[in-house]
Formats: sequence, C-alpha cells, structure tokens
Amino acid sequence: MPENTQISAECRKFLLEEARTGKLATVRADGRPHIAPIWFDLEGNTIVFNTGTDSVKARNIRHDKRVSFCVDDEKPPFSFAIIDGTAELVDDQEHLLAWATRLAGRYMGQARAAEYGKRNAVPGELIVRITPTKIRFAKDIAN
Amino acid sequence: MPENTQISAECRKFLLEEARTGKLATVRADGRPHIAPIWFDLEGNTIVFNTGTDSVKARNIRHDKRVSFCVDDEKPPFSFAIIDGTAELVDDQEHLLAWATRLAGRYMGQARAAEYGKRNAVPGELIVRITPTKIRFAKDIAN
Repeated sequence: MPENTQISAECRKFLLEEARTGKLATVRADGRPHIAPIWFDLEGNTIVFNTGTDSVKARNIRHDKRVSFCVDDEKPPFSFAIIDGTAELVDDQEHLLAWATRLAGRYMGQARAAEYGKRNAVPGELIVRITPTKIRFAKDIAN
Repeated sequence: MPENTQISAECRKFLLEEARTGKLATVRADGRPHIAPIWFDLEGNTIVFNTGTDSVKARNIRHDKRVSFCVDDEKPPFSFAIIDGTAELVDDQEHLLAWATRLAGRYMGQARAAEYGKRNAVPGELIVRITPTKIRFAKDIAN
C-alpha cells in the first residue's frame, strides 16, 4: 500500500484552523534527536517555515533531510497530525521577507506582521520546505 | 561548563501549570526521527509517561535511549522547554495503573481519571522515565 503523502482537506483544516505551533524533529550528526517548536504555514502540499542557517535544525537537515513534524490539539478529546517528510533548505532572500511576514501575521496577528516579519527576515535566514512522505492524522482520540 | 540537567522551579511551573502535552522525539533504527505527542508528568527531576511495548517510541528507545522532549506555549509571547535526555523503559505492572490514572487525571480531569487510567494500564504497557541531560527553557520569546 502506498504511504499517504497528500495532506487531506480535513488535516489541512486542522493544521490551519488555529495558529498552533509545529514541533519539528531532526537528527544530529551524532545520532541524537533534536526537537524544536516552529511557526509554519502550508503552501500546497508542503510545510514551510524559516530558520537561521546556523540553527541546529538547519545543520541537522543539511546532514540528513529526513524530518518528522507534529501538530496537536492539547485539549480533550485530543487530535494530532504527524507528518514525516524530507526537508529542503532554500536560500531565497527575495521571498524571505514575504514568508517571514506571512508567518508573523499567522502567529502574532496581522497588526504586528510587518514588524515581526522584518525582525525574522535577517541575513542568514533560510526558507525550509517539507515534502511529506507519510502523513498520519488522528482526530478526537480520547472519544 | 556543565550542561543544565536540573529542572528549575520556573521550568517546573511551566511544565505543570497547564496540562499541555509533551512532544517526544526519538530516532528509528534506520536513522529517521520520529515525533509523537504524549501525556507526561514529573517525578522529582524525571519526566514520566506510558507507552505500549510495541509502540514506535518504545522500539526506538530500546534501540537508542537518547530522546528530545518539548513542551511549548503556543500563544504569544510564546515559551518553550526543550529537554534532551535518556529514556528508560520500565515494565512495572505494579505501578502502571497508578501512573496511568495519575496521567489520565492530569489530562482528562479527575472525574475521568479512573476510567482512562484503566483503559491505558493494559498488559504490554510500559512506564518510561526520562532523565534530563540538557535543559533549555525560554520564556516569552516574542517580547
């Protein structure tokens, strides 16, 4: 059976309905896992976020592009999406400010989007795109 | 400088003040990261949760006990704790029901603790304890 690689309409709704943070797991060169919360948005079937070129996330992805990403509803009855995928680091200064502003608007509110977009679109920041290789979406699991 | 391995009073308060879920990152035998949301509680300086003996989490920990754990506040101004540690799988049927009930009370509410504790304390369930090796706590990062 082929793995589920397309974000379903129901999963997309869950990922976007509130500005929940994503949690990204990557693997360090010494084999240890690393986890960090991220601001993300979707573009088509890819997950997009920003990070610094020297962040642990970026260094790990440069070493091994395989990542695991999670968004969950922390309240009963609990739901979660777990998306395994491959991450691509994109050094695109032209689109960086637009993405940083879009993400800031989603998480800080539109009134502060420009301020926080500018704060996050500094030299050395990268755009990261995750292409799903396996998607699991579980809704209302404690029901 | 020695790594910070003790959960501070401020970090403990953050981890316990609301029943936020933890996100646990482990590494699969093939080197890919795995992430999953978990119900957790603290006992002294250790993070405690339950999982099935055949879960991906348990299989990964059996293979490599190095884990990374994250709890975050998803709303502005955003805070997070990232705790790297080593995980120990404990097959302790005597204490399993007590732990499952305690965790269920924390996340489902005391009125449903017994019901969900029983539901989760089934044969094959393990207690997992994470001993921190490095703790990072960042409060109100968007201020």
